[in-house]
Amino acid sequence: MSKLRVGILGATGTVGQRFVQLLEDHPQFEVTALAASDRSQGKTYSEACAWRLPGEMPGYARAMRVEAPQPPLHCDLVFSSLPGGMARETEGAFARAGFPVISNSSAYRMDEDVPLLIPEINHEHLKLLDAQRAKNSSGGYIVTNPNCSTIMIALALAPLDARFGLEAVVVTTLQALSGAGYPGVPSLDATDNVVPFIEHEEEKIEEETQKILGVMRGERVEHAPIKLSAQVHRVNVTEGHMAAIRVKLARRAALEEVKDALTSFTSLPQELKLHSAPAQTIIVREERDRPQPRLDRDAGRGMTVTVGRLLPDKVLDFRFVALSHNTIRGAAGAAILNAELLAATDRLKH
Amino acid sequence: MSKLRVGILGATGTVGQRFVQLLEDHPQFEVTALAASDRSQGKTYSEACAWRLPGEMPGYARAMRVEAPQPPLHCDLVFSSLPGGMARETEGAFARAGFPVISNSSAYRMDEDVPLLIPEINHEHLKLLDAQRAKNSSGGYIVTNPNCSTIMIALALAPLDARFGLEAVVVTTLQALSGAGYPGVPSLDATDNVVPFIEHEEEKIEEETQKILGVMRGERVEHAPIKLSAQVHRVNVTEGHMAAIRVKLARRAALEEVKDALTSFTSLPQELKLHSAPAQTIIVREERDRPQPRLDRDAGRGMTVTVGRLLPDKVLDFRFVALSHNTIRGAAGAAILNAELLAATDRLKH
Amino acid sequence: MSKLRVGILGATGTVGQRFVQLLEDHPQFEVTALAASDRSQGKTYSEACAWRLPGEMPGYARAMRVEAPQPPLHCDLVFSSLPGGMARETEGAFARAGFPVISNSSAYRMDEDVPLLIPEINHEHLKLLDAQRAKNSSGGYIVTNPNCSTIMIALALAPLDARFGLEAVVVTTLQALSGAGYPGVPSLDATDNVVPFIEHEEEKIEEETQKILGVMRGERVEHAPIKLSAQVHRVNVTEGHMAAIRVKLARRAALEEVKDALTSFTSLPQELKLHSAPAQTIIVREERDRPQPRLDRDAGRGMTVTVGRLLPDKVLDFRFVALSHNTIRGAAGAAILNAELLAATDRLKH
Amino acid sequence: MSKLRVGILGATGTVGQRFVQLLEDHPQFEVTALAASDRSQGKTYSEACAWRLPGEMPGYARAMRVEAPQPPLHCDLVFSSLPGGMARETEGAFARAGFPVISNSSAYRMDEDVPLLIPEINHEHLKLLDAQRAKNSSGGYIVTNPNCSTIMIALALAPLDARFGLEAVVVTTLQALSGAGYPGVPSLDATDNVVPFIEHEEEKIEEETQKILGVMRGERVEHAPIKLSAQVHRVNVTEGHMAAIRVKLARRAALEEVKDALTSFTSLPQELKLHSAPAQTIIVREERDRPQPRLDRDAGRGMTVTVGRLLPDKVLDFRFVALSHNTIRGAAGAAILNAELLAATDRLKH
Repeated sequence: MSKLRVGILGATGTVGQRFVQLLEDHPQFEVTALAASDRSQGKTYSEACAWRLPGEMPGYARAMRVEAPQPPLHCDLVFSSLPGGMARETEGAFARAGFPVISNSSAYRMDEDVPLLIPEINHEHLKLLDAQRAKNSSGGYIVTNPNCSTIMIALALAPLDARFGLEAVVVTTLQALSGAGYPGVPSLDATDNVVPFIEHEEEKIEEETQKILGVMRGERVEHAPIKLSAQVHRVNVTEGHMAAIRVKLARRAALEEVKDALTSFTSLPQELKLHSAPAQTIIVREERDRPQPRLDRDAGRGMTVTVGRLLPDKVLDFRFVALSHNTIRGAAGAAILNAELLAATDRLKH
Repeated sequence: MSKLRVGILGATGTVGQRFVQLLEDHPQFEVTALAASDRSQGKTYSEACAWRLPGEMPGYARAMRVEAPQPPLHCDLVFSSLPGGMARETEGAFARAGFPVISNSSAYRMDEDVPLLIPEINHEHLKLLDAQRAKNSSGGYIVTNPNCSTIMIALALAPLDARFGLEAVVVTTLQALSGAGYPGVPSLDATDNVVPFIEHEEEKIEEETQKILGVMRGERVEHAPIKLSAQVHRVNVTEGHMAAIRVKLARRAALEEVKDALTSFTSLPQELKLHSAPAQTIIVREERDRPQPRLDRDAGRGMTVTVGRLLPDKVLDFRFVALSHNTIRGAAGAAILNAELLAATDRLKH
Repeated sequence: MSKLRVGILGATGTVGQRFVQLLEDHPQFEVTALAASDRSQGKTYSEACAWRLPGEMPGYARAMRVEAPQPPLHCDLVFSSLPGGMARETEGAFARAGFPVISNSSAYRMDEDVPLLIPEINHEHLKLLDAQRAKNSSGGYIVTNPNCSTIMIALALAPLDARFGLEAVVVTTLQALSGAGYPGVPSLDATDNVVPFIEHEEEKIEEETQKILGVMRGERVEHAPIKLSAQVHRVNVTEGHMAAIRVKLARRAALEEVKDALTSFTSLPQELKLHSAPAQTIIVREERDRPQPRLDRDAGRGMTVTVGRLLPDKVLDFRFVALSHNTIRGAAGAAILNAELLAATDRLKH
Repeated sequence: MSKLRVGILGATGTVGQRFVQLLEDHPQFEVTALAASDRSQGKTYSEACAWRLPGEMPGYARAMRVEAPQPPLHCDLVFSSLPGGMARETEGAFARAGFPVISNSSAYRMDEDVPLLIPEINHEHLKLLDAQRAKNSSGGYIVTNPNCSTIMIALALAPLDARFGLEAVVVTTLQALSGAGYPGVPSLDATDNVVPFIEHEEEKIEEETQKILGVMRGERVEHAPIKLSAQVHRVNVTEGHMAAIRVKLARRAALEEVKDALTSFTSLPQELKLHSAPAQTIIVREERDRPQPRLDRDAGRGMTVTVGRLLPDKVLDFRFVALSHNTIRGAAGAAILNAELLAATDRLKH
């Protein structure tokens, strides 16, 4: 069967480049359109894009002509990593024009009828697409993935919430530079420094996590009644977000049970053997000094969350440190996994 | 009046070098003895010591001969930054030989009759010296300062504990490389990386803070009944420890009250105008992206704690980020301030 | 005698902030006007300027109102660190309006009648001001300082050229991030990386050095006939440019002679005891692993060039490594020293 | 045909770990013995080795027992990355005991009858093995690869020497932290810093290059009469050595010819299709800001040298910047390529 044709909105940005890289030789998707902002339009991708990822720009993309990010594009679905400002209007236009929009942008994440999807956690939320379909008969719709640090946090929390119930979560992040895109964080803020601020990030972690871990009540998602506190920091790491997490559970649990819940976590993407799904979603390491960004970010080809330093906590119940690759599991890889789930459940069409 | 003569134990190490630097031109202390481990003994300080601080080695120290760290030394008191292994025996020997030992080492910090002193917080703990005197009639004694991150954390907590009462504290640190000394952290662990582990550090923060904030009950310190949780990380910063802190207070407080408690915090060192005491112990910054190590570590010549991002917290009551210079306020500067308090209260003699 | 009143053009930029910092409590100059681009005008300096230097913004500047960078300003002279694009027009306008313009910008550096001044090297070039005066009777004029790495290179070369003659120079730089201003170099280009390119920098080093080391022939500077090759790199250092330098001399010299030429280099700024002149312009260190940016950039309050690894070379004659503070000796400090020389030689008036 | 059995001497070090990683699933070699110093012996590799490379320790090695580095070992040849001190004695012992020793250590590199082999450049030097055989009838011998930066430099120079003749070479390196092993460079020397010193490195680059580019005269290598000057620096980069190189050619050449010589460079490893040989040994990039360590070190799976900024030079003839992966092409990968050449030319036996 032929591959689904894919357009990438925001193709020249940091996450856009990850889409281009991860979709090379993808078994189900073939990139047929690249779109970006004014400056790039009309140029070839190799002219328009200052490639910032290790390794060469994939050959397939080099000569492709960059188009305007507006429908129609010659494709069956679009991935979007448009910047906040223009994402809402553009993604909405594509959805109304009949395109499934698999978005990494924040514009629609908290909309009531838009799934904030992590396939391992809340694939039931896809039911929200019925509500979108009711308003938009074109066949188009929007599915979003969470913020880069929220995905990792939610993945580490989901098995604990499922088995023990979560009452409160205290998260302190140490986030990588690539999360801010390019040029992003000025080097004078990064070198020999930490910045304890990322705009809107604390709010996103607190709110998005409650939606992700929420359950379907009829037609809508009831947000999880978990108390959440996030303090965020930008540290001098190229790739790999880290979060120090404490949890208060609804029921008493032994450390070994908590560990088992994390380690044994497996879900629909693994059952369906989705192409980008890692064999193991969460790895728990026993070494006392792991996870570390440089050593662990590429676990599961960037799609696995590594947990370490799992210990009892003196204020809440347990604590641990989680780490994952912020531009793969936290962005482009997340969106691609979402699309793979949509394809596997017959929600994408040629 | 002539200056008190000072010996430095561990003079060639990272903290020892800070002692040598900070004591240059000190109005009350004059360095008359430098002691370090075997390899250095008999050499001049400039031969023995690979000076790693910005700026030149102070001229006064260059030609001084490095001695063995054993009593007697030609001085009235000793500062110690000996490594853990040998600190207990050596510092004890100096105290028994009649020397006041002002120690930055961890060996005696948790001993029942040893003050774990931060002059702004618990100068009453100096009463413990009576117990030492009861056992040791030589005139010698030991006073310690806390671990480098604990000092900053305790300073930020003390005014809140005093005004509102503290029930629980959740601390997540991002600590500088210099805290591990030299050679210390291998660069391959620091560059493009974070290490979520520092040996014994989480325990030290949790235990030492309870002692520091404890109150004298008769002859001993009753540790503060505050629940404490610490998660620690080593980040790629040369100097300046940072801590993301949440607090649960014993009574309801408004954000402005919390801010006022921090900002207005002043104590004995300021009253006594101790040479190393900062005009303001805690600065609260309003900018949304402060404190930052590179910009704020030198506040108050390295003796001020900078607090920022003070906000209500959704799990505990308030949260903020604290930062201070880990080898000045967190080590050598702390010990010198302790000695200044001892001098000002007639506990040091020629 | 009252101080000369100073305006700063480009006051909110990285170098502008250094001017504001270094001019606090200056014995001869008092800042009376701050000017910057559109966005800042009308705001107070503390509102307009995101202060990026360690330590607080000087109190004197906080409430000053930022003005447009156009004459007249309420001052006796202006320092300029305007960006390339607008420097030429604006600085010219100030000079024509009667203001001495002490510029750190590149716009006029290579103009025939503009001194490219390093007071230790080529104070005779101030004779070029006669030519400016001939064209511009307003009393205004322009004096420039070289590019940040060129200053250091020229200072290290000047005593060798004077004593032995220079035939060829091969320079390879490792330059600090602050040289690019703020936001400047994106952190993803700096962390775990080196960028072997800085726009126009290789040309500037090659051309400016020839002018600086040139001699007055009548009314003009005859550029030095030295062959120069520069390769430049941006490395992950906040402050402190480094250059690996090889030299071919016109006459045979012993290593000790070369060292002596560097060490004994002293000149007019030292004779005149200019406020910002370092006691020693060049320090030669003997340790095999110096100079290092973090340890040596602040030598002579940032105005001294530190040289190390002075050795015979197998292709040219000698080699060494030079280092200096790129935003002090390499920018704001250089311009201030230039102004101090102008004041000391009666070229500045109230 | 069955694989050759391989032992690794120094298996727990940084380069040893690269051997273990690169030999996983190698088509010709199978690791059957791991040897390291006292502390590790008797432990399993997973117990003995703190794995510092991104990704997991290969499964095949985990349960292998670490042995003493002395003959005999159960294998057909040994790779050695022993530290300098013990390499000479141990490697000699293995050679005398009949083992081909493919060494990354410096101990034997400059020995008259030991090839300092880069298969693309000087495979004729393998004739030196005759001399070894004359002294050692056991069948054992020693083949070395050059120092990590020398390999890259020699590879970039070889095609120029072959086509134009080289008279003089001026090299300035910016070398990665991993070149010093682990723990290696202290982080306080690396962060916000450059160290202009690596022990013996300048001498190695100068001497080894002359041997590598030398030609066989009868039984021995006549070193190339090229004048070489090296200045070396350690910069804050995890992997990827960079060198700024100027060359003076024996005959006049156009820039395009120089570029063509580099780009078209191909040799025996490519003809023999050796497993680790890159398709293209040297890539010349046209972008003005390349090569960069983070973007280019993995070219050709770490075996390609990337050249950029190729320009005419004002002192010598041409200049450029070269970059390659220092622990792959510069160490373990180099030794493995050497072994592949030995196998392909029937110099390794079961």
